[in-house]
Order: sequence, then C-alpha cells, then structure tokens
Amino acid sequence: MQLNWKLEYSLPGSEEVKTTGAEVPGAVQLDIASAEKYGPYAYAENWKDYLWMEDEYFTYRTEFPEPDIEKGEKLYFISKGIDYEFEIALNGKVLLHQEGMFTPVKIELTGLLDKTNELKVSIFPVPKMHKHPENRSQAAQSVKPAVSYSWDWHPRLIPSGIWDDTYLEIRPGTHLDDLFMNYVLDETLSTASIDLHITGEELNGKILQWQLIDAKGNIKIDKEIRPGNNNAVIDAELENPELWWTHDHGEPYLYQSVATLLDDQGNPIDRKETSVGFRRVRLVMSEGAWRGPEGFPKSRNVAPAQLELNGKRIFSKGTNWVNPEIFPGIITRERYNELTNRALNANFNMLRVWGGGIVNKQSFYDLCDEKGILVWQEFPLACNNYKGTPEYLAVLEQESGSIIKRLRRHPSLAIWSGGNELFNSWSRMTDQSLALRLLNSQCLELDPHTPYINTSPLEGMGHGHYVFRDMNTGEEVYSTMQRAHFTAYTEFGMPSPSSVEVLRSIIPENELWPPKPGTSWESHHAYKAWVGNTWLMQDMIEDYFGPSKALEELVENGQLIQVEGYKAIYEEARRQKPYCAMALNWCFNEPWPTAANNSLINYPNIAKPALKGVGDACRPVLASARIKKFKWREGEIFDTEVFMLNDRFSALPGGKIKIKLVAGEEEAVLMTWNYGEVPANDNLAGPTARGKLPHWKTDRFKLVLEVKDHPEYNSEYLLLYEPKHSTKQAAALMNQ
Amino acid sequence: MQLNWKLEYSLPGSEEVKTTGAEVPGAVQLDIASAEKYGPYAYAENWKDYLWMEDEYFTYRTEFPEPDIEKGEKLYFISKGIDYEFEIALNGKVLLHQEGMFTPVKIELTGLLDKTNELKVSIFPVPKMHKHPENRSQAAQSVKPAVSYSWDWHPRLIPSGIWDDTYLEIRPGTHLDDLFMNYVLDETLSTASIDLHITGEELNGKILQWQLIDAKGNIKIDKEIRPGNNNAVIDAELENPELWWTHDHGEPYLYQSVATLLDDQGNPIDRKETSVGFRRVRLVMSEGAWRGPEGFPKSRNVAPAQLELNGKRIFSKGTNWVNPEIFPGIITRERYNELTNRALNANFNMLRVWGGGIVNKQSFYDLCDEKGILVWQEFPLACNNYKGTPEYLAVLEQESGSIIKRLRRHPSLAIWSGGNELFNSWSRMTDQSLALRLLNSQCLELDPHTPYINTSPLEGMGHGHYVFRDMNTGEEVYSTMQRAHFTAYTEFGMPSPSSVEVLRSIIPENELWPPKPGTSWESHHAYKAWVGNTWLMQDMIEDYFGPSKALEELVENGQLIQVEGYKAIYEEARRQKPYCAMALNWCFNEPWPTAANNSLINYPNIAKPALKGVGDACRPVLASARIKKFKWREGEIFDTEVFMLNDRFSALPGGKIKIKLVAGEEEAVLMTWNYGEVPANDNLAGPTARGKLPHWKTDRFKLVLEVKDHPEYNSEYLLLYEPKHSTKQAAALMNQ
Repeated sequence: MQLNWKLEYSLPGSEEVKTTGAEVPGAVQLDIASAEKYGPYAYAENWKDYLWMEDEYFTYRTEFPEPDIEKGEKLYFISKGIDYEFEIALNGKVLLHQEGMFTPVKIELTGLLDKTNELKVSIFPVPKMHKHPENRSQAAQSVKPAVSYSWDWHPRLIPSGIWDDTYLEIRPGTHLDDLFMNYVLDETLSTASIDLHITGEELNGKILQWQLIDAKGNIKIDKEIRPGNNNAVIDAELENPELWWTHDHGEPYLYQSVATLLDDQGNPIDRKETSVGFRRVRLVMSEGAWRGPEGFPKSRNVAPAQLELNGKRIFSKGTNWVNPEIFPGIITRERYNELTNRALNANFNMLRVWGGGIVNKQSFYDLCDEKGILVWQEFPLACNNYKGTPEYLAVLEQESGSIIKRLRRHPSLAIWSGGNELFNSWSRMTDQSLALRLLNSQCLELDPHTPYINTSPLEGMGHGHYVFRDMNTGEEVYSTMQRAHFTAYTEFGMPSPSSVEVLRSIIPENELWPPKPGTSWESHHAYKAWVGNTWLMQDMIEDYFGPSKALEELVENGQLIQVEGYKAIYEEARRQKPYCAMALNWCFNEPWPTAANNSLINYPNIAKPALKGVGDACRPVLASARIKKFKWREGEIFDTEVFMLNDRFSALPGGKIKIKLVAGEEEAVLMTWNYGEVPANDNLAGPTARGKLPHWKTDRFKLVLEVKDHPEYNSEYLLLYEPKHSTKQAAALMNQ
Repeated sequence: MQLNWKLEYSLPGSEEVKTTGAEVPGAVQLDIASAEKYGPYAYAENWKDYLWMEDEYFTYRTEFPEPDIEKGEKLYFISKGIDYEFEIALNGKVLLHQEGMFTPVKIELTGLLDKTNELKVSIFPVPKMHKHPENRSQAAQSVKPAVSYSWDWHPRLIPSGIWDDTYLEIRPGTHLDDLFMNYVLDETLSTASIDLHITGEELNGKILQWQLIDAKGNIKIDKEIRPGNNNAVIDAELENPELWWTHDHGEPYLYQSVATLLDDQGNPIDRKETSVGFRRVRLVMSEGAWRGPEGFPKSRNVAPAQLELNGKRIFSKGTNWVNPEIFPGIITRERYNELTNRALNANFNMLRVWGGGIVNKQSFYDLCDEKGILVWQEFPLACNNYKGTPEYLAVLEQESGSIIKRLRRHPSLAIWSGGNELFNSWSRMTDQSLALRLLNSQCLELDPHTPYINTSPLEGMGHGHYVFRDMNTGEEVYSTMQRAHFTAYTEFGMPSPSSVEVLRSIIPENELWPPKPGTSWESHHAYKAWVGNTWLMQDMIEDYFGPSKALEELVENGQLIQVEGYKAIYEEARRQKPYCAMALNWCFNEPWPTAANNSLINYPNIAKPALKGVGDACRPVLASARIKKFKWREGEIFDTEVFMLNDRFSALPGGKIKIKLVAGEEEAVLMTWNYGEVPANDNLAGPTARGKLPHWKTDRFKLVLEVKDHPEYNSEYLLLYEPKHSTKQAAALMNQ
C-alpha cells in the first residue's frame, strides 16, 4: 500500500514551515530543490545551493485512513531504508528512533490506528564529527557513506531521507519474514549440505513447506516441517548441484528456493521465494606467493589475493563500482541493469563495491547473480580512522548485521571487506581497530564461508598509480607497472576529460574554453581534485600531443591517453599472472557528470572510449605486447615482448602472430611468432620483437598483433612518433 | 580434599593390566617410568623408551568414602587440567567426556555417591592426524601444544594425564565461582569505570559484598548488591587508580578484589579474592611506521608493534618463554618464580609465551603481575596449518574461551596472539583462516581491550636470524641486523653449547668427546636440529677460535660467541628505536637439558654466560657501540658508531665517554665523546670512533665504552684479533 508523502522544511534563517510533495524513495534535497526551483545540482556550481540542508531537521508526513483488516491480519509499516538518523511516530506517538540507513524498518501498526492516521518520519541533520573540517573526516563516527562529504570526484552533497521502498502492508498474523539457505559444499563439490533458516511470526504448529527448484522447473528438494518457534531450520542435502559460475567461466546457474506456509488444512497462508546459487569461493595464495621473503630476519608472507571459484583459480578482472547516483533514493533497477551490462560487455567478472559509497539496493545483487559477476562488498568505511567508541560500535554492529543478512544469500558475493584503504597513513587504522575486529567477527558469525578481508590494499596488494605519467618522476604507466610485483592491483586509475556532450551539459558556455581553475571545471574535479594537476592534466596531454586548438581536440587526446594507459595496466597485470590474480581499475562509473575523472563511464551511462579498450584487454584470450614507452623517435630501436594470454579453463591450440607497426598507409612487419599450445588458464611468454623505426610522415603509429585466423585475439596499441626532423624542429633549426 | 590415585596401564604387546601409584598432578609417562624403572628421560636417548605410550589408553582410579556433607552443601570433583582427551566416570557411570587440556572440570557429585565410591579418569591416546609423519604436523587438528611432537630443541615426548590441581571439594550450595573485574580507563587514566562480573550458584536473593582494597589495606570501593541470578554485575568507578607498571618503569601496583557472599542475617557463606591491577595497554604504530611504502602502486603500512602502557611508549625487551618442563604436570610455582626472577634480573619487561608450548599454570601469571613483567600470550597453534574443520573449531572455541577467561584479569597480560609463525610458508595459514578469525572474535568478545594479533611475525616484524654467521652467505649477525629495518624483532637466536656440567649429565662419558652426530649429542639437538650444522656449529666456532683441544674449550668459545651475538642484536634493535619497538630473543629457557640451543638458560635453571650479556644489553641506560665484524686484523682501521641508549621516561644529563680498545695490559684510546642530554625515552647517536689497530701479541681484544662517573652505563665487546704475522702464519711462511 503506497503512501502519499509530504515533506516539511524551513529555509535557512526562516521560521516558516513549508510543505511540498515528497518523492519516496528519494531524498529531501531533491524535493526541496524541486519546490524551491533550484537549478539541477549537476550543472555548474548549483550544488552549493544545497549545502544548508545538511544541518536541518526535515519531516515526512503522510495521512491514511484505517485500512480494512481481516481478523488475524496485521498492518505493518515497512521501509527498506531511511537515511540516516530518524524517528517514526504514529498519531504523535514515537514508535522508533534509529541511527543507520541500512537496517530496514518493520513496525506493526495494528491496534494503534484511529479512523484517520498520521505517520511522521523525522529526519535528523546528517551525522558530523564536531570540530572536523568539511570533508570526509566528518563521517568517521557514523555508518554513513563518507563519499557524500566530498571526494575527488564527488561534490559535497550529503543525501538524507527515505531512500528505499517504503509502504504499508497488510499481512497474515502468521507469516514468513526471511529465508536464508546456508550450505556447505563438500571437497569434491558434489554434495551441498543445506540448512535452511526461516524466520517469521506465529509459525509455531504451522506447516512449512520448502522446495528447491532448478532452472528447468524440476523440484530437487521438497520438505515439510512443523516449526516449534519463529526460527525454523530445515536440513537437506542436494547431490550434484549445478554450480554457479561467473559468465566467463560457465553459467551463473540459479535455483529458486520457495517456502510456503500452510495452515492445518493445507491452505497456503504465506510464501517467500528467493533465487539461490551454489558456489564455493575462497581467497587463496596465488602461485609463487608462498615463496615469500628471502633471508633473515623474516617477516610474514603476503596476504592471499587469488580468488578460487568452485575449486578453480580465476583471474579477477573488473573494476571499482561507486554509487551510480549522488542520491541513492533515485537509483533504479534499470540503471543497475544497464551499468552491469556494460561490465559484462567489458569482460569483467568482478565488481568491487567500494566502501566510500553505499551498499547497493537489492536489485544490484540480483542482477550480479543473474549475470555471473562477482561482488566484492565493502562496509561503509573509507579513508578515515573509525575509532571504536561504544556508540559507533553499537551502530556498526547493527548496520553490518543488517547488511550481511541481506546479502549473504547471493552467490555473486565473493568477498567482504572492512572498507577502503584503512591501513594507510591517510586513514591510520590498524589491525587493532575494534571496528574491523567487530566486522570480522560479524562476518564469521553470519557468513563464515565467504572470505573477509580488513581492507584493501593488504600486504602484497597495490593501489595506484592514478596517472599516465607521474608528476614528480616523469615515469610512465608502462614502466611503473612493469617494475611492480603485486598479487593484486585492486585500484589503478587513468584520468581523462569527459566527453564533450557531458562537458557542455555541466559547464556554462562562457567557462567552457579554455578550461580554468576556479570555474565549474574545478567544481567538477578537473582541478585540485587529487595531487598535482588532476584530473584534467591538460599540460601532460599537450606535452604529448601539442597544444589543443579546441575543446574537442583536448578531449580526444586525453581520452586516447586513458585508453592506452588502462590497456597497459590491465594487460601487464594479466602478464604477471599467476603471481598476480586481480586487476580492478579505479573506477567504473560516477554518480554525477564530472569534467575529468578516472571513470570508464560518464554519468549516467555514457561510455568513454576507454571502456572499449579495457574490454579488449580483458578478453579471455588475446595477444598482448609489453610496451616500453608512449613516444618514440625515428631511428630508435623499437622492441616489445609478446605474449598470448589465456584465462580460459581450456588450452588454446598453437598459431601464428604477425607483429607489425602501422603508420597511416605504411606497414613494417617486425616478426612472426609461431606460438605453441597455450596451457589452460595460463600465459605463454613469446619473443621480443625488434626493429628500427623508419622515417614516417606522421605523429603516431600503431603496434599491431595480428593472429592468423583469429582476428578476435588481435591487439593494437597507439604510440606517438617523432620524425628526426619534425616540421617544428626544422622550423626551430631554421630560426637559429 | 586430596585423592590417592592409582594408574592402570598395559605394556605394549601385553594384555596384562598393571597398576601403580600415580602422582597428581603429573603425567602417566612419569608414573609408568617410575614403575617400570626407566632411566631418566633426559639422559642419553632414554626418551625413546617412552614413545609407545603415545598410542595407549590409561586409567586413573581413586576410591573414597562418602564424605560428611552438611545440609545445603555440595560435593564437587574439580580439576584444573587433564591432558588431552578424557572421560570421567563415577561408580561406572560416565559423567563427562572432554577434549582439551585447558578447560577446567567442575562436576557435582552430590546425590551420586555410594558408601564407597570409585572415580575413574580415562585418558585417550594423544591426538594425531592420520597419515602424517611423526612430527609437529600431527598436532594440526588439536589444541594440544605442538612442541611435544618434537622440535629442534624438544625430543618427541608427548605428555598425557592429569596435569594441574585436582581434588574433591565440599562447598556450600550457594557459592561463588568466578570474579572478573572488567574496567576501562578514561583517556586521562584518572578514572576506571568498572563492571565486576560475578558468577556462582544459587546467588538469587543473597547479599553480595564487593571490596576493592589497595596495597596499604585501604578499602577503595565497598558495594553490596542482591543478585537476581547467577551472573551478577556490579558497576563502580575508581578515581585516580594507582596504575600497574612494568618493573622498569614504575611499580606493578596491585589491588585486592574481594567478594563475600552473605546470607540474610549477614553471615558470610563464601568468599573469593583475586589480585587486580589497572593498566591500559595498546599496540600502536611506532614512530616512523606511518611513513610507509613510497610511490605507486602502494600497499598497506606495516602492522603496529609499539607497545603503549598507560599512555607511554615502551621498548619491549624480553624473550620467548617455552614450557619449563616437558611434562607440565610437574612445573611448580617455585620453578616459575626462579625463572621469572632471572627475567627480572636480565632487565626484561616482556615474555612471549610461545604458541608451540602450553598456556602456563596460574602461578606464572600471578608472578608476572607481581614482578611487573608483561606477557604476550599465544594460543596453542604453531608452525602448522590448523584447518577450520567444524570438529577442530568446536574444541578451539571451548579451549580459547577457557584460556581467555582464566588470564584476562591479569594486568601483566599485554598481547593475545593466534600462534607462532602461522603466516609463513612452513605453516601456510592466511588471514582467511577460520581458526584465527575465531580466536580474534573470541578475544574481542571476552577481552576486547587487550591487543590481539593473528600471529608473529606480522608485516614489519622479523623472526631470525638464528645463527652468528649465516651458513650460506657468511654474513655475520652484526651486518644482518644493521641492514634490517623492522618494527619488532620478536624472535632471534644465537646458539651455544650447553655448560659442561649439563653435557656431562646427559651424554654418556664415551660419547662426550669429540661430539658426533648419531649419538646423544644429536638426540639433544647438537646436530640436524635446524638447517645447516645447528645447533652445535662446532666448525664455525673453530673457524673463529681454532680447533678446540677439549670439551671445555669448545663450550667456552661457543658461549662467548653467544654472548657477543645476543648483545649485538639486542643493542642494534634498541639503536633502531623508535621505529623498532621490540626485541625478544629465541629463547629464554628449555624444558629439558639440551646439548646446544639458543636458550639463555639451561634446564632447569642454569644460566649461560649470555644471560648476563643480554641483561647488560637491556639495562635502561647504557653506552652502546655498533660493531662491524667479529674478527679484526692488525693494521686495519677499526671504527664504530657510538650511542647512548635511554629507555627511561626521564632525560639523562650529558656526560663523557671514553672509547678505547683493550688488549691484555695494553690500551688504545680512540676518542672521548662529550655527550649532551639524552632525551627521555630516546637515544642519542654519537660520533664514529676510529683508529688503526696496533700490533698486539694477542688473539682477542675488547672495545670498552667507559662512562665517566657512571660505571653502570659502561659497555664492552669482545672481538677477535689477528696479528699481521701470527705465529701460525709465520710458521707457514717459514715452511714455504
């Protein structure tokens, strides 16, 4: 039963209580902006108009007549999420006070109703630590996602209000609440030992039927019990379960788990259905990771970062997922669907749901289950020192418990993580953190068979670099990666300017060209975002390509750098397999249109050219070249090591690769490599191809790996070229 | 009420049940050896005679008449520890089956008694994993200390039987069981918020009085409650508590916590008393440890290894403590007392109770409380992969719960650790281990304010080296340590032959000289103990000192190397303060007389010369020299960096150090350093003293640091010397 909500608010400095219609789910900020006719928050610097709302109280109000309730039925107020601290009152009587947006609300209203009723949800000001500057550190004593307090790709815009489905529901007094199929697969993966946990109300003495149904509709398990209380458990075994696989290694096979509650006459009273899947996921040591430190004194070995799914080691290729809207209330299943389709098409098998953002709505995890994409889920801790005060720990225990119970049934759920970069100097948490020990303990209790890590990076894992060329050392990404030796690259970025259409939609015409700090460009993260001249990096782009004559040229060149930079990292990480077992770039998407960012996709779902390049670098099989540098000069000896990369579980027959350089119409074949069989789930290192760069009339060329009869394995890399006497140089010489 | 026990056993291959008197506490092995007149297990290779006992069942039996029990009283069978799996039966009826030696037994016998009664404790064969070789790996699915399965300093001798106090006790039906004072000190350490947890039986409606009494007998807290059930809690606050300090930084101040149970008339029924202390202990990052990895990709920072006691950073100086007997049943308070006195005199403030051995008996922790020595307590996991099977986890949960509840009240308890070297390749556990996640979770629940680490070493911490000179590289300990950069050296060894008196007591006369493999020397770890020629290392000793003419000479020279090697490590670790914050050698004591070992003390309590050297290196204040190498030649430029080390919390006034070389009667002063004030809890780096080594008629000399007016700060180092034309060389030249 949907409710019509009004929102009450007062403008800053005014005592007048204003009322407007409220979208639920949504955010108070959006309702007020609409009522007060604020400009869109994504345009120019309009977001600044919203800042006052952080520190105010707001009230959602709705009225409803007493519903017709049959005997034995009950009326509930249900909300899947209210952000962040709030109080719920019926007809003036407070029924609940809660801190925490991830713990759903279920309040029985039966017996409390008048003829007409007023339900009120009061929203408190957003949580902030006192005396902290206006940045993420204000979030360090709450379970509110820190990103909203501003990040290098997120404006300061802190949502609050009812952010997930919220309604009245009439239910039979006897009903089911939750259905959780816990299971353990035996060592050979041929038997699933299941204990199904069912919670509900007034279950005592009723008949509870449970069926497990396969994808073809066959009933594989059919059991009936009479629960003795409201926490029923059904034990069962399933022989030869169809396993759930990631899309690149098999089928993401799902069963339906259906519980039906029957009365003594066998009439159904209530029913719950969820999809379930069977998989065993482990974090193990990658090959070579036990070789560990040499000599004495000896420290510990690195932490495990090799994902093992159903007994098979898989290379985790994927990305860091951030909240796809600033206001989570307006995220739709459709948005999740189109973005996860992008991930699928980019050959990603893992999404790291980053701890700075929200834990997603339900449909996200359903889609990942269906599409066969693994989820690394972080708790909402990021880049802060979350001190273990009793107050914080109490909210964290409640919120993490709710999160774990909601997500643990999903076969896509591969890793729990305490949060982002907590063991680094900018966060200053350590293994001694009570908050992280609590999360470890909660996961162990509620979902022991899904791996848990305290944070990323752990020892052996790397975050960064986030630029094509280091601002201090001048080192390019190719070299940075080739000297790196990590088990997992769980963040690495490569910024580019956003597409011209995006820029035009957010930056006023008069600020658009040339880009400048202190304008909407800066508000949208082109300047002063991270260290150095991030994220636009116009000087670096122009250092490679020459001055841009127009916005279009700057964007095109910047995006080319992003394509090549990202390909270089993903492919080098894969070439370092099996010691390296993960490559997840920073980041996939963005919650609002940025002017420049590391994302592969502009808000809301506009792919940058890099998405295609990354998808190519993540193909299960490809020819791959280790590039030394971006810019080459006429007469230099060009050389490159060549590999065949094979992430498939089957061996690849041998074949032939032509390695050539292409500059416009001209082509120079460096060599042909007759490669032998590439073992299953392994790489084959090939020769170094070498040749002197000829004279070309061009400023760029391509290295092309052409696989005979298998164009789907081909790869190519854009490189810059400087003739011995370029026009510019010649002109310079003539002027001497 | 003590019981007279008999032990029943059968010899291997025999069906005859033999009976002998049993010492309780003790071990079945000792009773049988005594009955069968086996030679002492420490002599020669007698330990081999005991091996058959591993796989047998044994039965302890005792008879007792029905005691006089007043109305309302109850009779209990109490045992503080039975090793390892056992069954307890009264008059033929099994009352308890238990796996685990650290969970005490309390069984009520009231109402089960006949006129005469037979109590039987059946001991099962020691736990072993099937199909594992006869070494520590057999212990990888039990909570039995792995050391007994053989180690590089421990024979294969696996104890079993009743190992701690065991008796019948008549108690009032209403009585107290446990008293645990949980407290949190506020940030300024000026208020202790206490919640006292009291458990007992039939407490409901009784009067419970609690007093906290200071060392002078003043009652600081006096409270009375009427418990509603058998788990009572009393809240209290103590203003300005006297804090518990380690002996080197203050007084290990203890209070007495006294609970009295009174009936309605105010008559005392039962009473419990424990000593308690107030301290706040934290593991924090040492100075400089946040600087962390440079450049990108960036991994995590190191784990914290700086102990903070009552808000002050202290350098942890100490040692690894191993079980002081092979058979824990015969460890006495007196043994603990004399060994902890040795630690005190060696200026140690921390003992790491190593996870390969037992969790000690109660008196050990009481003594550490009283003497102001911190305890790093490991759970019984070491150098194995303890897989998280449901069976193992169940026993581990029970045993760790018992251990934590027994030890958590001790102010000396500074660190909980999952076990020894679990994250190294020879163990192959990882952060994903369910066993370690369980231990972390148990400690968080039962003792959240004491630091917990999964294992040692963690990242940033180092174990080793264990020799004076590396067998492969030839690198000496001086150089190894000086290029090391760790936050904590939590194990490092330096072997020496045992004292001659010890050797004569364990090695038959005919095997004594020269030492040879395959004899009692090997059984006592002189050969094939660890890598290379450990632990005797006769060739290295003789390489430095020349061939030994007799056992006495070999022992003397080997022990000199141990002295200098250990001093070099402790002092270098201290010179690396504040980044380095711990130095704990491997190991302090030994459970039986070894022929050669890294220990500072031979069994049972015979100090090696190194104990004095280490004690000197651990003085709160000393002059310290960074030595480059052990052996020097005439005419070489000798140089050494000089430091003043100050672990006191107060600054040290400036002074004067004479740095000189002493060879027999001859003396060469290198320089005098007028040092300024040495800051509190900090070091002062001084100059490098330098000089050409003159011609001496000697094969050794000393570097002496002589502090004017403060001989207690003086230090000296033994070094070897080779004249340009030694007699040997001269003879060799003449023979050419």
